[in-house]
Amino acid sequence: MPSNQFIPDIVIGRLPQYLRTLQRMESENRIITSSQELAERIGISAAQIRKDLSLFGEFGKQGTGYDIHFLIEKLRSILKVDRIWDIVVVGAGDIGSALARYQGFTNRGFRVAMLFDKDPAKIGTKIGNFVVQDSRYLSDAVQRANIKIGMIAVPSSEAQNVADQLVRGGVRAILNYAPISINVPPVVHVQYIDPVIHLQRMTYYLD
Amino acid sequence: MPSNQFIPDIVIGRLPQYLRTLQRMESENRIITSSQELAERIGISAAQIRKDLSLFGEFGKQGTGYDIHFLIEKLRSILKVDRIWDIVVVGAGDIGSALARYQGFTNRGFRVAMLFDKDPAKIGTKIGNFVVQDSRYLSDAVQRANIKIGMIAVPSSEAQNVADQLVRGGVRAILNYAPISINVPPVVHVQYIDPVIHLQRMTYYLD
Repeated sequence: MPSNQFIPDIVIGRLPQYLRTLQRMESENRIITSSQELAERIGISAAQIRKDLSLFGEFGKQGTGYDIHFLIEKLRSILKVDRIWDIVVVGAGDIGSALARYQGFTNRGFRVAMLFDKDPAKIGTKIGNFVVQDSRYLSDAVQRANIKIGMIAVPSSEAQNVADQLVRGGVRAILNYAPISINVPPVVHVQYIDPVIHLQRMTYYLD
Repeated sequence: MPSNQFIPDIVIGRLPQYLRTLQRMESENRIITSSQELAERIGISAAQIRKDLSLFGEFGKQGTGYDIHFLIEKLRSILKVDRIWDIVVVGAGDIGSALARYQGFTNRGFRVAMLFDKDPAKIGTKIGNFVVQDSRYLSDAVQRANIKIGMIAVPSSEAQNVADQLVRGGVRAILNYAPISINVPPVVHVQYIDPVIHLQRMTYYLD
């Protein structure tokens, strides 16, 4: 694999989609696939997929296609999900509770390790396998457990404060469910999940 | 506004972020902003923001900046969220329930109108303001109510079947929370929300 090569972030953003689709194929007991089949399943052109994957080495054989298991292992290694990352969830409302119970992290590189809230009525209660912890101790707990990934599921008005606490605790990647942009140091990565953003992107095209 | 001009989908994808940020500013009683300030809040370059907005007309004045309220109204019109779109949610598990109770749709162009599940133990129970309806009648109910937007919050194994039913009922935009790609006719738009995709995009950059 070419080392130290700069890969555009937009390419990195597509790799998890390739991985998800390949893992789905593997669960269907498939052995070999093609860029054409991946393209049909994902909705990205076959040429784009071949180009993206070629940035990381020679994964396919002309006329034979891609070995699904081999490509999965390569992508897991590239994306660093050939290990398990612990996640802290902040906010034990509907979304935080859904995340704490979410089955979709399994075999994809992640597990929820802790759940926090600032509401005294929630602290100490059990949600899924987690006892809700007091947000006052968020930074310390995250630092002690060496957790690098946080999910924010608190109201917009509290999201920046929680982000600051996560960063203070050493978190380096934040998935923010609050519908507001947060400011973090450049070394910290942020992604957003806001259903309205996705919906508005589609209504543009509706009559 | 230039009419019938082709706007790249990637630009359309950024407009909801501009709108969200402007609406946040308006809630802070702000009147005027600049592409620089928007850039800082959103994390997209000021030049990109000016270029994107210029595709739709002359919204800013040199040296004066953008009128926040005016730009909000323009973006709402462009994205067609100057109206309220009804949404059907399919799946009354953790995610579907969170969506049914989600407060973040208000003032952003959407409202949940119906909630469906196929589990007899859930059908007829109340979640938020909704009585869970029987998925068997999904297509008919959606068609009768003329609903154009659906959210899929069922297990992966059922997602394609639900998508087919939604499309049969006339839905033209689907937000899919199941971690699997779905196939729909070209006239139907699909967006995905899968937290793992966002997480894997960030772990690439972590040590």
